[in-house]
Amino acid sequence: MILAHYNRQGKTETLSLLSALCRYLAREVKAAEDVPGFSRSTMDGFAVQARDTFGASEGLPAYLEIAGEVLMGEEPQGGVEPGQAWQIATGGMLPAGADAVVMVEYTETLDEKTIGVVKPVAPGENVIRRGEDLTTGDPILPAGHCLKAHDLGVLAAAGVTAVEVFCRQRVGIISTGDEVVPPDEKPAPGKIRDINSYTLYGAVAEAGGEPHLYGIVKDDFQKIRERLTIVLKENDLALLSGGSSVGTRDVAAEAINSLGSPGVLFHGLPIRPGKPAIGAVVAGKPVFGLPGHPASALVVFQLLVAPLLRMGNYSGEENGFREFPLVARLTRNLRSAPGREDFIRVRLFLQQGSLYAEPVLGKSGLITTLVKADGLARIPAGKEGVEAGETIEVKLF
Amino acid sequence: MILAHYNRQGKTETLSLLSALCRYLAREVKAAEDVPGFSRSTMDGFAVQARDTFGASEGLPAYLEIAGEVLMGEEPQGGVEPGQAWQIATGGMLPAGADAVVMVEYTETLDEKTIGVVKPVAPGENVIRRGEDLTTGDPILPAGHCLKAHDLGVLAAAGVTAVEVFCRQRVGIISTGDEVVPPDEKPAPGKIRDINSYTLYGAVAEAGGEPHLYGIVKDDFQKIRERLTIVLKENDLALLSGGSSVGTRDVAAEAINSLGSPGVLFHGLPIRPGKPAIGAVVAGKPVFGLPGHPASALVVFQLLVAPLLRMGNYSGEENGFREFPLVARLTRNLRSAPGREDFIRVRLFLQQGSLYAEPVLGKSGLITTLVKADGLARIPAGKEGVEAGETIEVKLF
Repeated sequence: MILAHYNRQGKTETLSLLSALCRYLAREVKAAEDVPGFSRSTMDGFAVQARDTFGASEGLPAYLEIAGEVLMGEEPQGGVEPGQAWQIATGGMLPAGADAVVMVEYTETLDEKTIGVVKPVAPGENVIRRGEDLTTGDPILPAGHCLKAHDLGVLAAAGVTAVEVFCRQRVGIISTGDEVVPPDEKPAPGKIRDINSYTLYGAVAEAGGEPHLYGIVKDDFQKIRERLTIVLKENDLALLSGGSSVGTRDVAAEAINSLGSPGVLFHGLPIRPGKPAIGAVVAGKPVFGLPGHPASALVVFQLLVAPLLRMGNYSGEENGFREFPLVARLTRNLRSAPGREDFIRVRLFLQQGSLYAEPVLGKSGLITTLVKADGLARIPAGKEGVEAGETIEVKLF
Repeated sequence: MILAHYNRQGKTETLSLLSALCRYLAREVKAAEDVPGFSRSTMDGFAVQARDTFGASEGLPAYLEIAGEVLMGEEPQGGVEPGQAWQIATGGMLPAGADAVVMVEYTETLDEKTIGVVKPVAPGENVIRRGEDLTTGDPILPAGHCLKAHDLGVLAAAGVTAVEVFCRQRVGIISTGDEVVPPDEKPAPGKIRDINSYTLYGAVAEAGGEPHLYGIVKDDFQKIRERLTIVLKENDLALLSGGSSVGTRDVAAEAINSLGSPGVLFHGLPIRPGKPAIGAVVAGKPVFGLPGHPASALVVFQLLVAPLLRMGNYSGEENGFREFPLVARLTRNLRSAPGREDFIRVRLFLQQGSLYAEPVLGKSGLITTLVKADGLARIPAGKEGVEAGETIEVKLF
């Protein structure tokens, strides 16, 4: 529903390779030249014409004349004629005429000028041909790919030193609540410090977005509307959090609806925690109303917001094993309600080679349960619960 | 062996909470005050004296006088006397005298001034007591803890707005090899572009270190020695990569040994890839000689260097499930040698709910195999191989 109305700008910028780590490619990158640019040896040994070694054995070695040595990083001056061999190291350039490399382990030195080959090689053996890794025009990485360390290396190998990547999406964060004060303020009786601005700031950054805090707003239609107007002007997405009571949630929904269409697309989700979540789009920009409790807000964020911040190809990235990749045995029975997806904080431990998940339980309002868990477990909507010893899917924090 | 000689400086810096994401706490953080600072309701309903509801039922409700309303974020002006109830929302401050909250769902409104409670509550029910989350002096997070999004929230809740964290470790990276040229240079025949500077730069950043590139050095004792001297002066760790041939590796080891004791601690590891790795410490600073092949260099980096860059508590962080957390079925037989740990690049896919790992095979010198895999699988040292259908442990890239 969000994606149907989300007008993702997809702005791009060109970055040097080293600055592009963890960023998403805006377009496919193709090889501009052959990699490697010449045929290379993959072993220390001798460059030969393979047919000279056919039939060679321990008992009847093939004798070859050592006609030269390939210097690392240099073009061999000369070629390999029939009956000849050139000494070559791993990565060395194959001399003209040679079509294979005999590993040094399968040769014996007769004198300074002669080796005996005791095992035949096939043409192409122990050699990477010019263009075998990448031929000019080959796709290297697809649009939407998130650049990891090894990707930087492969791009460097192909001479790509700058890449066009999607800009990070700006996310504006508002905390709401008459009872909320900034963390550096000593709360008066009845007030509590702002937690969600901080958890959401961290969560947006972890998901690859660019978080911007817009402070705390009272639970008031006009005030929320004004602050949200600014946030939507300056950002690609807006997050509101707080308003745990029913009346307050309605104020947020009304403020969102007053700003443009389609407005609120859903209000309430069949998940626990996270039931009161609001999803909306205003003038092409997603707006989420997250629950006031930090643990609930984070669950809704991980399920709905984080995937929007990853600028990748949705279908390719949303493989289940990436979202909840671990499988662990539950240490105790947990009840759930069919038709509702449950998310449980768990502590993980290994016992005799098996991974166990121990639910971190506690009153719903406690925040220290947040730091006692290693990860989040999912109970699918179709189940009425999970029994001790059954396996569940878990994601690490 | 490395840790025994590593004189980790453990320099620290104090950062604002928002700048401290993904950093490691230098010391334990304790609660400076009670959280919450007052008893709060966890439900929408009525604050009562629990004993007034004992015995209440649908058939025989307990009738209570509505004596006030708790305004969110404000201290209630007055208390709950026997026979009274105050309206309260989730997060509201419990008035004096009240010891429990009745959920609104278990009340019926008789008139403006009277409710009927149809289900009893126990003292403390639907309430978080002052200090129940954190009592002054309680440890919140231990030294060495890596700060995640939810940690920022819990620290904010406790009024912690700045934290002392370990400085990122500076890692100096040198590529060696007569055949290596910078990526922005068109390689002459026999030359190849520098890949490892880029993969290692990315890998250091991903592991939480601060990477610094020191360029390309020829395979020459004097030149390596000079560059390494500078790197060790300006960094906490040094990485040399390249020198795939036997002679070159010896040059690197000699250069390391010439700079100080204990020097090289091991030269060669029972792993594949990564066999020619060098581990050394010079004057308290670790120096690693990584294989020239990027895939091999990354495996050794992940196994030996990355754990040193995480500034956490080693014993706590090195749980197996964090290093190789996925379990997948292998799609084909793979041979190994007992006594050697093997690391295989794999492509992962889900089929009928099971995770499968398909080995990405290819000649050892190819670099594009780096971008075709989703993760790395481990075959333990004790096994002679893994058969198709057997499970293996995998980590995602």
